[in-house]
Amino acid sequence: MGDRKVKENMRNIALLVEFDGTRYAGWQRQKNVLSVQEALERSIAKIMKHDVTLTGCSRTDAGVHAAGHVSNFRTTNPIPVDKIPIALTTALPDDIAVLEATEVDLDFNARYGARAKRYAYRIWNHPRPSALRARYVLHEARPLDTVAMGEAAQFFVGKHDFRAFMAMGSSAKTTVREIYKAEVEKDGYLIRIVVEGAGFLYNMMRIISGTLLYVGLGKIETDAVPSIIAAGRRQAAGKTLSAKGLCLERVWFDAPLFFHHGGGIP
Amino acid sequence: MGDRKVKENMRNIALLVEFDGTRYAGWQRQKNVLSVQEALERSIAKIMKHDVTLTGCSRTDAGVHAAGHVSNFRTTNPIPVDKIPIALTTALPDDIAVLEATEVDLDFNARYGARAKRYAYRIWNHPRPSALRARYVLHEARPLDTVAMGEAAQFFVGKHDFRAFMAMGSSAKTTVREIYKAEVEKDGYLIRIVVEGAGFLYNMMRIISGTLLYVGLGKIETDAVPSIIAAGRRQAAGKTLSAKGLCLERVWFDAPLFFHHGGGIP
Repeated sequence: MGDRKVKENMRNIALLVEFDGTRYAGWQRQKNVLSVQEALERSIAKIMKHDVTLTGCSRTDAGVHAAGHVSNFRTTNPIPVDKIPIALTTALPDDIAVLEATEVDLDFNARYGARAKRYAYRIWNHPRPSALRARYVLHEARPLDTVAMGEAAQFFVGKHDFRAFMAMGSSAKTTVREIYKAEVEKDGYLIRIVVEGAGFLYNMMRIISGTLLYVGLGKIETDAVPSIIAAGRRQAAGKTLSAKGLCLERVWFDAPLFFHHGGGIP
Repeated sequence: MGDRKVKENMRNIALLVEFDGTRYAGWQRQKNVLSVQEALERSIAKIMKHDVTLTGCSRTDAGVHAAGHVSNFRTTNPIPVDKIPIALTTALPDDIAVLEATEVDLDFNARYGARAKRYAYRIWNHPRPSALRARYVLHEARPLDTVAMGEAAQFFVGKHDFRAFMAMGSSAKTTVREIYKAEVEKDGYLIRIVVEGAGFLYNMMRIISGTLLYVGLGKIETDAVPSIIAAGRRQAAGKTLSAKGLCLERVWFDAPLFFHHGGGIP
């Protein structure tokens, strides 16, 4: 009966979160360093009047940003769901923003429910770095062939064994992942590598971006990319680019959860 | 003869500088706090192998950003002028970038030679703040009437006594200034108040922006703006908006100095 009462009051709340990852040791809570999860849990605890544990859609690395990270937590607090982002605004640090909150089924899990994700890697391709964009881009002073980069990106689309694009020393049950879209956009000096996929291996997006950067520089031939994928040797792919250029832009679930979806960084 | 030799070797170098003002106590060197001028002078001293004194086009306030600040310094170092920005790249902190350097006449002075400036004030007009734009915008959650703001902005164009738009307690020989352009641009949730003028009083751009914000909120009638200007009472104008939304975008001199001109923040 007591158990049943708890269950009846229990709510599952999903959050759409934007964060600047510069100050944080990644999404996931860790000892002795500040994570986005911990900062967010602390602010939510103040509003909800009880400790909460967030389940995140993705463990982003230290320094990686998000325009549309999704997480969920359980609460018995009856606060109307649309009041949660408003109440959180003053409780949160400036570099974390809860854009929307929505009530979801009790069995919704932001980690296991995530069906696809979009990441963008941003490169500032200008002879000089940009002081006003420094936190959100990798600076590359040498001219890049973005047409070649866009052609090479197409080879990543589809279901492939991406073991060559996984950080050395990490492990995964399977290194096969499906990529739905991989494009290179250019807007003035800003180059965006946009990749959508069902899942990503550890550092996969940063290694794909590093490989496309090498294609842009002429260090890797466009046509060499399929054989780099097929050979499965990490050393043949490009370097792992700096975390600060990476942004988790959007996450898809079985059904749409939010009105916003994270617009990315301009 | 000695004097003459120094003069013959002396060069005057103008710099186009982008900076994120968040960490700095404004442009001008001050005791016990870090200014953009001091950080920049230190880096230049390393490259030039002697102390330098910069003359800046404008004393921006603490927290104000610049996409195209111009300053100049004298040196007898024969380094080719186009090598200066490259040499400075590694010496500068990430939040200051020298985009271009050019050699100018010995009598060029970035402060007295500045003929006009463009400032942009940026407002993020969305129910929730943006974590990825927090350093560069003022957040306003209430809906703003940007059409009314644009109409009101037109009243600032022309030669007016702007004493109502000067920080209380500050002084100026004359409070008459000429504004060439004042426009309100809207791009999604981002509103930019763009003002070009021959000169600006202390806090003038932030008070003009605060007045236009009040117009956008319906707190000040569009048609009331001319009488607020004419009355010359600081209390009748809007509040002084936060420094972080302000960016010095461009400075004009008698002749163009640079190929770039500071693109602003997107």
